[in-house]
Parts: sequence; structure tokens; C-alpha cells
Amino acid sequence: MTAILDSLAELRHALSPSQVLLPSDGLDRYQRSALDGFAGRAAAVVRPRTTDEVRVVMRWAYRHRIRVVAQGANTGLVRGGLPDETGATVVLSLELCRQRLELDVVNRTVTASAGHDLGRLNEELAGHGLLLPVDVGSNPSVGGMVSTNTGGAKVLGFGDVRRRVLGLEVVLPDSDATVLNMLSGLRKDNSGLDAKQLFIGTGGVFGVEVTARPRQVATAWAAVRDDESAFALLQQLEESVGDFLTSYELTTRNVLEIRARHNPGLRLPFPDGRVPELAVLVELSTTLSSRAGLSVEDLLVDALDRAAGLGQVLDAVVGPHDDMWAIRHGGDEFGREGVSYWVDVSVPRSRLAEFRRRFFGLVEERFAGWVPLALGHYGDGGVHAGVLYPHRRGSCDPAEVESLRDELYDVVADLGGSFSAEHGIGPYNQRFYHRHKDPALQALSGLLKSVVDRRSILGVADFGPSGQG
Amino acid sequence: MTAILDSLAELRHALSPSQVLLPSDGLDRYQRSALDGFAGRAAAVVRPRTTDEVRVVMRWAYRHRIRVVAQGANTGLVRGGLPDETGATVVLSLELCRQRLELDVVNRTVTASAGHDLGRLNEELAGHGLLLPVDVGSNPSVGGMVSTNTGGAKVLGFGDVRRRVLGLEVVLPDSDATVLNMLSGLRKDNSGLDAKQLFIGTGGVFGVEVTARPRQVATAWAAVRDDESAFALLQQLEESVGDFLTSYELTTRNVLEIRARHNPGLRLPFPDGRVPELAVLVELSTTLSSRAGLSVEDLLVDALDRAAGLGQVLDAVVGPHDDMWAIRHGGDEFGREGVSYWVDVSVPRSRLAEFRRRFFGLVEERFAGWVPLALGHYGDGGVHAGVLYPHRRGSCDPAEVESLRDELYDVVADLGGSFSAEHGIGPYNQRFYHRHKDPALQALSGLLKSVVDRRSILGVADFGPSGQG
Repeated sequence: MTAILDSLAELRHALSPSQVLLPSDGLDRYQRSALDGFAGRAAAVVRPRTTDEVRVVMRWAYRHRIRVVAQGANTGLVRGGLPDETGATVVLSLELCRQRLELDVVNRTVTASAGHDLGRLNEELAGHGLLLPVDVGSNPSVGGMVSTNTGGAKVLGFGDVRRRVLGLEVVLPDSDATVLNMLSGLRKDNSGLDAKQLFIGTGGVFGVEVTARPRQVATAWAAVRDDESAFALLQQLEESVGDFLTSYELTTRNVLEIRARHNPGLRLPFPDGRVPELAVLVELSTTLSSRAGLSVEDLLVDALDRAAGLGQVLDAVVGPHDDMWAIRHGGDEFGREGVSYWVDVSVPRSRLAEFRRRFFGLVEERFAGWVPLALGHYGDGGVHAGVLYPHRRGSCDPAEVESLRDELYDVVADLGGSFSAEHGIGPYNQRFYHRHKDPALQALSGLLKSVVDRRSILGVADFGPSGQG
Repeated sequence: MTAILDSLAELRHALSPSQVLLPSDGLDRYQRSALDGFAGRAAAVVRPRTTDEVRVVMRWAYRHRIRVVAQGANTGLVRGGLPDETGATVVLSLELCRQRLELDVVNRTVTASAGHDLGRLNEELAGHGLLLPVDVGSNPSVGGMVSTNTGGAKVLGFGDVRRRVLGLEVVLPDSDATVLNMLSGLRKDNSGLDAKQLFIGTGGVFGVEVTARPRQVATAWAAVRDDESAFALLQQLEESVGDFLTSYELTTRNVLEIRARHNPGLRLPFPDGRVPELAVLVELSTTLSSRAGLSVEDLLVDALDRAAGLGQVLDAVVGPHDDMWAIRHGGDEFGREGVSYWVDVSVPRSRLAEFRRRFFGLVEERFAGWVPLALGHYGDGGVHAGVLYPHRRGSCDPAEVESLRDELYDVVADLGGSFSAEHGIGPYNQRFYHRHKDPALQALSGLLKSVVDRRSILGVADFGPSGQG
């Protein structure tokens, strides 16, 4: 520890004192997960402003063999950007990297330093009728979105962050802190290995393709009988109005009931207060102005009428965008109802119905007292699967959650799915990576990581086979 | 050579004799480029049918240190799938790999062995109203499309092949011919390095996301004054009808004139036979049926009227899809007019006007007798830049073309572009890779390649720094 402190003095000198925060400065917001209160312990938090300063930090870390964890806005869900509990890790916070924010309107690209946040970026784009179509509940940094390949509630319509990244500038963890400049802003470049794909995860400056802001949006909730009907409806929508379909989100009855119970202002849009077994939020949008003669609301109403005629839908209500999404996004009602845990998985869409049945069955049969919940990006094959132990039942055993995760991920693997659809690995998912990832892929990933990060100084996830760090 | 022949006997035994073709069997179609007549010389052509047979071949090649070049339908343009002239290379033709062609309609994915071709795949999909939206002049194999990340004339609307690949099965060139199974069919999977991105180029089975077939298409040619007007029009179209814009292709006057001269059946759709300096093909399409009340033809007419009012367009004609595209795709008229060479570059859209001006200026000032031509995927920043030496001028010096490429790619690099937008590296572009690719990226790519291909037995491109194999 003394060695780290000595070397930190060197860094305070190379940067400026305010860019190197020590535990005595109070590091809580860089160490604590907003999700579950987990707190690691950092030796320091280093905050470079420019690529050159990132290089100073990486050269320093390489020389002293100090482990560095890159962090953006600390909104991650798998502890991938947090220090561990040893107190020997340095957090490389990119929050001050905000030098560049350059919009190329003709090219429809924006180049932004890692520390800008999604909200700020979209504010800048809105002035030009443009949008980076990432729709998540938090306000991540652009560097963080690249590092985790952020998904969200519009992946169905617009794809994930990886699909939009046209360029990256990367600082390597080697002796010289080599800079890879892959900031071309090109939509097409087949002049070699697409190396940036390896670095979705390293900080710096990056460039993304943006899209036009929709001028019309129509949103509805539809009650469906079962998962099979949910997919029949999805297929009918894709078939008839697929060009406009941007979201397709599923919610189970208990989620709706808990939300309604703790939010008196929230009105569920189903007739006579009946809460359906399953409901989906459907959103259509287009950049076409309504003056062009097309109304996506009319399209949505027609498609839902057709669905009712086909028995795919029991009830459906088109309503104001914000009210409809408030039901989907909710607030902190689960915390008020009990102790809850969520995981984020994906399976092929054609297996989602089976997944949900097996997940609910597993909880009901094997985990007495726990209530299974599901909130899904069903349109893209993703589902947030949760379990809740209600306060009224007394206290629960958190160890049960870990054994539930074991069994649940076995189901996911059996259905050809992923134990982490959107959130990454991080310490939170590390043991499942070792359990479920094809060993040949683990071996290859470990080798590739060792080529790029020879001293193993970067990040907290272990991509190689278990025990070979 | 005797050693190779002996070892080939071993392979004929392990597979079947008809799967191992020797020079005496006539290897012309596996050795010759359809583009420019270049012919390499293979020691043999090996044609596995299954992944297990590919493994047999790769284990054999690893053991005997034989260099192997994977080949699909041999429609590539940079000799990346052709043997070199040494006669010591074995072509691994994947044309018989056709075991799997599995459509998952609910998941909207198709899993196909590498040997199927694009035409066959889309025939299968058409029965379900689905489409793999790759629009190119040839009929490549699915393995070839992944290996070159195929672009084409619809990248603007649908993205390139990389954006659609959800999974790959890869056979590694190691002692055991390890199989990496990354065939998940998941739209979202952030459970580790997205290793398939490294292998867009290795053969095997792969899975892609498909899209719905358009039900309406409207196509027009518009005459524009200059490149700046072409981009003003593009921006106006993206702004007003961007959800439907699938192609935006530019053609210079001399291209149109040469096409018209050699194709009496081809009618240029401009009034009074006036051929404009520049013209763009615009295509809108949608999966929405015309019964839903929206006509993309009406949208296109309105947008072009608006453009005429804004001075962005001189003349514009909406016409039948096939007639309009015949003008864009043409036939062999350049060969009848003279000796022509084409390169495929990309620059940020905001630099394309400058690129074309500098390209035309370069040819006119420095390469007497050559005529500069341009055909562009302008909407995605791509342009096919050509030069023609007309027969009527006598014979040309092919060495001039190489020095023109030198100078042209310097311009491209200066504008932040790529010397190979869609076609890959291959021997045809090898020296430009060493000249223009960031040396740090070359070094990293070489290291990564050596991790995966330790005996350097696979392919003909050299990803590492020059001279380090």
C-alpha cells in the first residue's frame, strides 16, 4: 500500500492534484453500486481529461503493475466498473474526459469523449432533429455504453450500441500506452480486422452513427392470454407494420399489481380494473410527419383490432406515451414490497415462452416464499427475470438467490440463451462465465486478453478459463 | 511438391476422392478471378461437406504445415479466396457445405451452412415474406459474404452483413481443429468478448438475422448539379422520408453516356436526351402494404418536387424498378469501350464531394488519356472509383494504374477514408494495407492472427506489419 501511495504522488505531479482523489477525499460515489449497495475499496480515483492524460495513467499503471478499473457514470449493473475489496485497485474515472463533442450532420455521426453522458449527447443532437436511440432507465456515459454494449427498450427498432459504433480511439495497457486510432466515422471499412470490436470496453473517445428523431409515436398496452399469443401478436405486427415497430415489452400480472399498489397515481389501462395475466407494451414510431398522410396511431389501432379478431389480444388501449411507459418503467415499488433480485438473460425469441414457463415453475416448486416476476424486451429475445420475497413473509435467505441463479442459468443454457444479455460479466457474473461459456471460447478470450493486456492490469473480469486469470 | 501429393493421398482417404480435386481434374474455376482474369495455381481443391470434414482438413493442414485458402462462390474482388502462383496452396472450397438451412420464423433468423448461396437463401426466405437484404451484382455464398462483410446497394437502408450476423461456427487452424460454437441466434449477448467478430472470414456454418420483404418499392433517377446538391438532396430525403430510404446511388455523366452508347435498349430517363453531369438513383421501400393508405411512390414524388423547389434537383423521373436499376448496374459496356480498372473506397459522407473533385482532378492532370468514372453508394459513404482507357486511343500502360492507385489512396487517407470499403484486403490490396493502416493496428492484428493461427497456414492476406508474415 505504501508503494501505491508513493507512486500516486508521482501521478498527482504528472496530472494535477484534483485529478487524483485519495480515500481521505471521500470516494464513496466511485466505489458503491447504486443497484445493490455493494461497495468496493479503491486505492485512489484518477480522473484524466484527455487521451494524453489517459496515456499518462496507463503508462504509470503498467510501470508499477497497478490494477486499473475504468469507470464511466457508475450506472453499471454487474460491478464491472467498481474496485474490488482489496483496496489495491485504482479507479480510472473518465468523467472529466469531455473535450470532444463534434457532430457531423451530413455524415450523421457524432464523435464524443468518453465522459459525456447520454442525456447531454441527445440534447446536443435534438437541435438537429437527430437522436442516439438508446432508451435506458439511467443516464450512462458514452464510454460506459460502449464498454457494456448497452441495450435498452428500443433494441428491437434500432439495434444495440455495437451496431452504431463506427469508430473508437483506444489506449492500450502496454508500456507505451499505445493509442489505436479507429475513429474513421466510416460506415464501411473492410481494410483489415475490425479491431474496434475487441475494445468495446476500454474508454477514450468514440464515434457513433445517429438516427433521425421520430416525429410520430404511438404507444399501447395489450392484454394477451399467454406467451404464445404474445408471439403471435409480435409476428403479426412485424408482418403488417414492422417498419415502424420500435418496442415490444412484456410484463407479468404480478408486476402490474405491485406497481399499481404502490403508485396511486398510476392507472392501468385495462377495462374494469381487470389486470391481465400478461400484457405487452407496443410502440410504433416514424420520422415521417403526420402531414405526409400516414398516422402511426391509426396503423397501431388497425393492427390491434386485427389482433383482437384473430384472438391474439384480449384488450388493448392506445394511450399517451409517458403514461404508457410509466407502467413499464415503474419506480421503487419492488423495494417497498419486499427484497428483490433481478437477472438479465436472453434466449432465441422462439424459446422465450418455454423459458418463462420453466422459470416460473422453478421458483414456485423449489423456492418457497419467493415470487417470480418478468419484465421483458420480448421483441429482441431479452427478459429481466426477477424474484421477490415480500416483507410480509418475514426475512429471506439471500443464499437462496445464488442457488436460484445457478438453476435459472442452467435453464437459460439449456435453451441456448445467455446469462447476460445486456449487462456484461463483471464480478457479479464471473462464476457463470466460467460455468457456461464454451471452454474453447474462454481459452481463446484469455489468450487474446493476454496479448492486449500483458501485465493483466486492466479491469476486474477474468476472461480466461477459471484460475488462469 | 511430392510431400504435398503424398499427404493429399491421406486426405483423399479420409474424405472421399471426389472431394479432393487435383490439377489433373481441371481447377480453373477455383483458381481464376472472374474480375480480371488473374489465375493462381492450387496444389489441390478440397471440398468438405460438414464441419467435421472441415476439421479433418484443418488438422491435416496443421500437421503438414500446408497453407489453406478458404473459398466460397469465388465472386470476391481482391483475390482473397484464390491460391497464389506458387502451386503450394490448397483451396478449401466450401461449396459442398450445404447441410443446414434452418429458418426460425419466430426468431427471424436463418442458420445456413457456408456453401449455400445468397440466391438460394432468399428463395427459401421469400416463401415466408422474409429477406436477407444484401443487394450485389453477383451471387456469393453465405460463407463468402461473412468472410468479406459484404456491402452492396442497400447498406444505407439495411446495414452490412456484419450487422446481421448473430452467430458463427468456426473451425480454428490449430492442432485439434477446435470448433468454436457461437451459433446462439441471440440478438443480445454480452457474456464476454464477442469473439465472432474476429472470424468474419473463416467458413463453417453461420446464422443471420433476416428482415421482412418490402411490399412497396419506388425508384427514381434525379439529375443534380453537383456533389453538394447531391448531399443536400440526401439530407432532405433523410429528414423527410428517412424511414423508407433504402438506396442512394450516384453516377457521373460519362458512366451514363457509355452505358447508353453500348446498350441500345437502355433508356435514360432524362428529358430531351439531356444527360446530366451527375445523377442519383433514389429508392424508397416499406413492408407496409399499400392498402394501409401510404404510398411510397407518392412520398417519393412529393420529396422530389420539394427538392426541385429548393433547387436540389434539376430533373427527376420515377420509373419502373428494374429499368431504373438497369441503368445503375449496367453490363459489360466498359470492357467494350476500353480498358477499365475500379477501386472501392469510402470516406465520411461529408468528405465525398471533396473526394470526387480531387479524384477527377488527379486523373485529368496526371494521367493523360485516362477517363475518371464514379459510381457510388453515396448514401453510405462508399464510391466505386474507376478509370477507363478507351480503345480508340490505342494501348495503355497498366503500370500507370498502380501509380494512380498509389496517389488515389493517398487522397482517400488524407480525407480519413478506407482503401477498401467492401471488398477486403487480399493480395490485390496488400501493399496498401501496409502503407495506410495505422502501424499499431497492424502490429496488434498480426499478434492476434498469430494467437489464432499459430502455424500461419490460413489465408493469403498478411495482417501483421510488412515482412513479419
